[in-house]
Amino acid sequence: MGGKRHRVAVIGASGYTGEELVRLLLHHPQVEVVVVTSRQHAGKALAAQVPALRGLTELRFSPADLQTVLEASPEVVFMALPHGVSAEYVGPLLEKGVVVIDLSADFRLRSAQTYEEFYGAKHAAPALLKQAVYGLPEIYRDEIRKAKLVASPGCYPTSILLGAWPAIRSGLVKTLGIIADSLSGVSGAGRKAEVDFLFVECDGSAKAYGVPKHRHLSEIEQELGLMAGENVIINFTPHMIPVNRGILTTIYFDLAKKISQAQAQSAYEKAYAKEAFVRVLNDSLPDIKNVVGTNFCEVAVRVDPRTNKLIVITSEDNLLKGAGGQAVQSMNLILGLQETTGLL
Amino acid sequence: MGGKRHRVAVIGASGYTGEELVRLLLHHPQVEVVVVTSRQHAGKALAAQVPALRGLTELRFSPADLQTVLEASPEVVFMALPHGVSAEYVGPLLEKGVVVIDLSADFRLRSAQTYEEFYGAKHAAPALLKQAVYGLPEIYRDEIRKAKLVASPGCYPTSILLGAWPAIRSGLVKTLGIIADSLSGVSGAGRKAEVDFLFVECDGSAKAYGVPKHRHLSEIEQELGLMAGENVIINFTPHMIPVNRGILTTIYFDLAKKISQAQAQSAYEKAYAKEAFVRVLNDSLPDIKNVVGTNFCEVAVRVDPRTNKLIVITSEDNLLKGAGGQAVQSMNLILGLQETTGLL
Amino acid sequence: MGGKRHRVAVIGASGYTGEELVRLLLHHPQVEVVVVTSRQHAGKALAAQVPALRGLTELRFSPADLQTVLEASPEVVFMALPHGVSAEYVGPLLEKGVVVIDLSADFRLRSAQTYEEFYGAKHAAPALLKQAVYGLPEIYRDEIRKAKLVASPGCYPTSILLGAWPAIRSGLVKTLGIIADSLSGVSGAGRKAEVDFLFVECDGSAKAYGVPKHRHLSEIEQELGLMAGENVIINFTPHMIPVNRGILTTIYFDLAKKISQAQAQSAYEKAYAKEAFVRVLNDSLPDIKNVVGTNFCEVAVRVDPRTNKLIVITSEDNLLKGAGGQAVQSMNLILGLQETTGLL
Amino acid sequence: MGGKRHRVAVIGASGYTGEELVRLLLHHPQVEVVVVTSRQHAGKALAAQVPALRGLTELRFSPADLQTVLEASPEVVFMALPHGVSAEYVGPLLEKGVVVIDLSADFRLRSAQTYEEFYGAKHAAPALLKQAVYGLPEIYRDEIRKAKLVASPGCYPTSILLGAWPAIRSGLVKTLGIIADSLSGVSGAGRKAEVDFLFVECDGSAKAYGVPKHRHLSEIEQELGLMAGENVIINFTPHMIPVNRGILTTIYFDLAKKISQAQAQSAYEKAYAKEAFVRVLNDSLPDIKNVVGTNFCEVAVRVDPRTNKLIVITSEDNLLKGAGGQAVQSMNLILGLQETTGLL
Repeated sequence: MGGKRHRVAVIGASGYTGEELVRLLLHHPQVEVVVVTSRQHAGKALAAQVPALRGLTELRFSPADLQTVLEASPEVVFMALPHGVSAEYVGPLLEKGVVVIDLSADFRLRSAQTYEEFYGAKHAAPALLKQAVYGLPEIYRDEIRKAKLVASPGCYPTSILLGAWPAIRSGLVKTLGIIADSLSGVSGAGRKAEVDFLFVECDGSAKAYGVPKHRHLSEIEQELGLMAGENVIINFTPHMIPVNRGILTTIYFDLAKKISQAQAQSAYEKAYAKEAFVRVLNDSLPDIKNVVGTNFCEVAVRVDPRTNKLIVITSEDNLLKGAGGQAVQSMNLILGLQETTGLL
Repeated sequence: MGGKRHRVAVIGASGYTGEELVRLLLHHPQVEVVVVTSRQHAGKALAAQVPALRGLTELRFSPADLQTVLEASPEVVFMALPHGVSAEYVGPLLEKGVVVIDLSADFRLRSAQTYEEFYGAKHAAPALLKQAVYGLPEIYRDEIRKAKLVASPGCYPTSILLGAWPAIRSGLVKTLGIIADSLSGVSGAGRKAEVDFLFVECDGSAKAYGVPKHRHLSEIEQELGLMAGENVIINFTPHMIPVNRGILTTIYFDLAKKISQAQAQSAYEKAYAKEAFVRVLNDSLPDIKNVVGTNFCEVAVRVDPRTNKLIVITSEDNLLKGAGGQAVQSMNLILGLQETTGLL
Repeated sequence: MGGKRHRVAVIGASGYTGEELVRLLLHHPQVEVVVVTSRQHAGKALAAQVPALRGLTELRFSPADLQTVLEASPEVVFMALPHGVSAEYVGPLLEKGVVVIDLSADFRLRSAQTYEEFYGAKHAAPALLKQAVYGLPEIYRDEIRKAKLVASPGCYPTSILLGAWPAIRSGLVKTLGIIADSLSGVSGAGRKAEVDFLFVECDGSAKAYGVPKHRHLSEIEQELGLMAGENVIINFTPHMIPVNRGILTTIYFDLAKKISQAQAQSAYEKAYAKEAFVRVLNDSLPDIKNVVGTNFCEVAVRVDPRTNKLIVITSEDNLLKGAGGQAVQSMNLILGLQETTGLL
Repeated sequence: MGGKRHRVAVIGASGYTGEELVRLLLHHPQVEVVVVTSRQHAGKALAAQVPALRGLTELRFSPADLQTVLEASPEVVFMALPHGVSAEYVGPLLEKGVVVIDLSADFRLRSAQTYEEFYGAKHAAPALLKQAVYGLPEIYRDEIRKAKLVASPGCYPTSILLGAWPAIRSGLVKTLGIIADSLSGVSGAGRKAEVDFLFVECDGSAKAYGVPKHRHLSEIEQELGLMAGENVIINFTPHMIPVNRGILTTIYFDLAKKISQAQAQSAYEKAYAKEAFVRVLNDSLPDIKNVVGTNFCEVAVRVDPRTNKLIVITSEDNLLKGAGGQAVQSMNLILGLQETTGLL
């Protein structure tokens, strides 16, 4: 546990994602958080903003300027900013040899054109897209180990891609007609002071949104396409439900040929046999309460012989396996640490 | 408001459904609740069990025996019992000329064999199945008016059938590959003292259950098949979310041919133009909080040109439009009252 | 039910209180809502802002200017504005002979000086304070009947004053050392887009606030003092809990002399024997879920012989008996209608 | 981290408290859980019952018989059984030299007579009461270090005693007229399959219960009396609110003499300056969400000069500082480990 601690920084540490990421890093035995930034809270104590950290850290928010970050000599910088604003930091940091793990959507898409289509703005640093590695360790572990720029996946995409991977790469299912129906906790919307996310508006509520073309589709379809080796177009419907954290996703595939429940179960168990953070359930179905607060993704698979469908259900904590936890997983890989360090 | 009040009775009034039904009936200007029964609470004041009724009624629970009910000379008897126990009452009541509105699943299926397949027990009164009318007024209004035995629909089926009806009867969509993904509040499980439904287990939780062959499928597929004029097999995944009441259903259909969003919208608006309790939304999507406490079902429809799917989203209060409210709607039709009486 | 309908207006109809008030008025059989105003939403359909009213009203928000309101010739105008802004409307409306029922704190205090002490600003129309009647019908029924300006009570004060009244006016308790400890749902904070009231911040949370000198103390102590005929200073601690609606208040009094539980119970039952909206419980204790959605206040009383205290617990819906419902109760009195009209 | 691990057992590991305790012990770096028992689940995998432990332990529930426990040679045995059933285990375990930490109420009271008064049954092992140490480390640290039998405090008493201690031991406040008003999450009721604790009954609810003489009063008054050196009788009102975990307690004391806010603040800060698990807040007030999932108790203190009261507000996680976490704290002291081991 002793020895050198790696120096890390977090830019944009005052949202729900940034806060959770900082909490993980402060408890991580082999890193030291040398700077956290926040435009809004610069100068204030981190623990004043994140009361759960009272007594655990003396850190104060620094202003979010590049110079401050560089002066702290971090090996790894996490970016937990809204979409569209990472680019000004990423290039300069990479030039200084700093590894960047970006939790926004800015470097997840390989095509600047698709980015523009879904995010409604020109990409600010298209030249960097090529070197970005999609930070889903279960699929891109080797690439992440060598990455200088990691685009950490979105919460919805993680829940869908981990559910789809065993079925698609093994050809169990058709790639046409896939439907992903997701339920998300309200923290997925971020710490935004908007009426729609008030307690009174969300409690007792359940609704779909972003139908039929949610932004995350671009990222989901890109990665499903890469898995399948062909263009994949799906339906994805996100819903907001009155829980703080967690995503539950139900995915429907047409089976490529008839298989038994046991065969499907076996395919999934094998695919994730060596994964520390993916648990394939057998008798039970995922419930977000069992993964909230953890970096686990739970997966269950069911064959419906009546309709020849494969139904896959996954659960994760949107702020951990769907954001900060997964980013730390990537960091561990890059720093040559055990992948689970600080995450169990 | 004056004039004769119709005498009604409720057998099994102490569950969530029965309680809500009784509340509606007590506020209904043209009926008088002459007897409510409960095995468990016989002798106790109704208002002691349903505190919201304190001061509004002097009724006490009677024992659930047929004689007690008949002595009160009801015109209409509502049955809000668990599945499998209505049969002993229904035959004798019908023989005495009493109209029965049954809220259990016992008379919803036209085939005693399908009942046995899905409910795991022989049907106790198969001869009566023929005369039962499925109590979904938007589809079976004329039949309900003349019915002696109404099988009031389940909560999930109502949310799916009202969402599917305009699309299927007009041939807009294919009947193959339909997927219905539903979210339900916990009251859907009834007032059962089981660990799974404790606050601590449900709060912060979201999970699917009954995958892939939930009991309600039998009822849903029967009615979809009758709409389509052909056998229909679908996927239906119910989820439990931490709200008290409400169902939100998202249904995916393959379009039979390309249509525009405007055409789909128009088809739905026309289909429900004269319906008092179905609201077709336009710019917004259903949210259960907007229908909880009402007998409304809200419906939104979206064409996804990328996948050529029709996505229909519906919301309802599972205890009202999905149970007690719908039963009162049937009663109003049978008694020749305005369909909305006591329901606005 | 026919006959003339009284014309009423609501200024500031887009907050939680205003919305609930408008809903009540739209369902009220003897009034017609002729104008509702909202600075923010002027021109928009009311039902777009309050989806539960879809299909029930064609009203649109008017701009909040006096001229628009007067042109609609209302008999009664409700003001549901934030504190400090009613004064510009109230004087002119009263001059035109319009009855004003103000739901803000602006006319609740008899002393402009106390107002300034607790609200931090000079009162804008101190001359009007004299004619304002405190709109708590259980205490000021006769005065309300003749009032031109009603200051409708706050939600916390209502829950405390109705709990205290029987004990104080009969001298059962001492007026020194009274403690009121209240729990409120989040809607009490209004529809404010602030981080503190986001779902993620409130769910799983419980906290006190405004300790030790909450603004409502001024109103509570004024009214307790009037009941007692002497100056009364109390402790009042409001807490916010994760429910949408409802207030539960526990009040502790020192008994003036030893009395039995039966005597205390009897004193409370007698005090409220003729009240339609106050229910004195006997065997059970108040639970906000039993009054939410109603205009009832439930009260339970317990003698603690160990400490010689009287403990009174009350519950109400903060948006109904604590705001809009109570205001309608006052309106009914002023218009000479039955006090419960539109409220059961 | 290496070195010998102490062998511990948990009797009654399937309730919310037992489950949380086992989770803490499994993550504790210096103990090994050698046996967990459950009458109900004997033979089943622990992780099947506590899904959050999936993949983290191979333990199975053993039957709850003494022999099984003794054969595993534990140094420390935790008892997380309902009240009234510990006695059959405690005597025999103590005789074998095993340290017992009992989380039930059975050994918290020094007087068997008081136990009988409040728990309605004769104490089964009154002779053992003398050797029991009340396991509140902030007050009884030295005694706990040497204890063979620890009676771990109840959740409500912990929240009240930690709030009262600085004020009472320093004579800041009078001991007459103390009022403690507590809010508790539903897990405080245990994993009981009762209608009262169903999601549908608790969501949107808030209510007091056990008024005026809750069982925990016996324990609270005993300990307050020991602090004060005189008999202390208080009022205590527990409330249930719709959160899973957490207790928030507001305590009202009469000040013994006038003091300033700064003096009160200073007294509390000094009293807890060396405590790892008590955080005295200054500018903010406790919110249970900031302590849930931790072993911290947060305390804020306010002087009300208007009424000459001291108001103390505390928060804790009822299953951690109020149960399992505090028990582990005692174990650490007994085993000579650092008090915070496994608890941060």
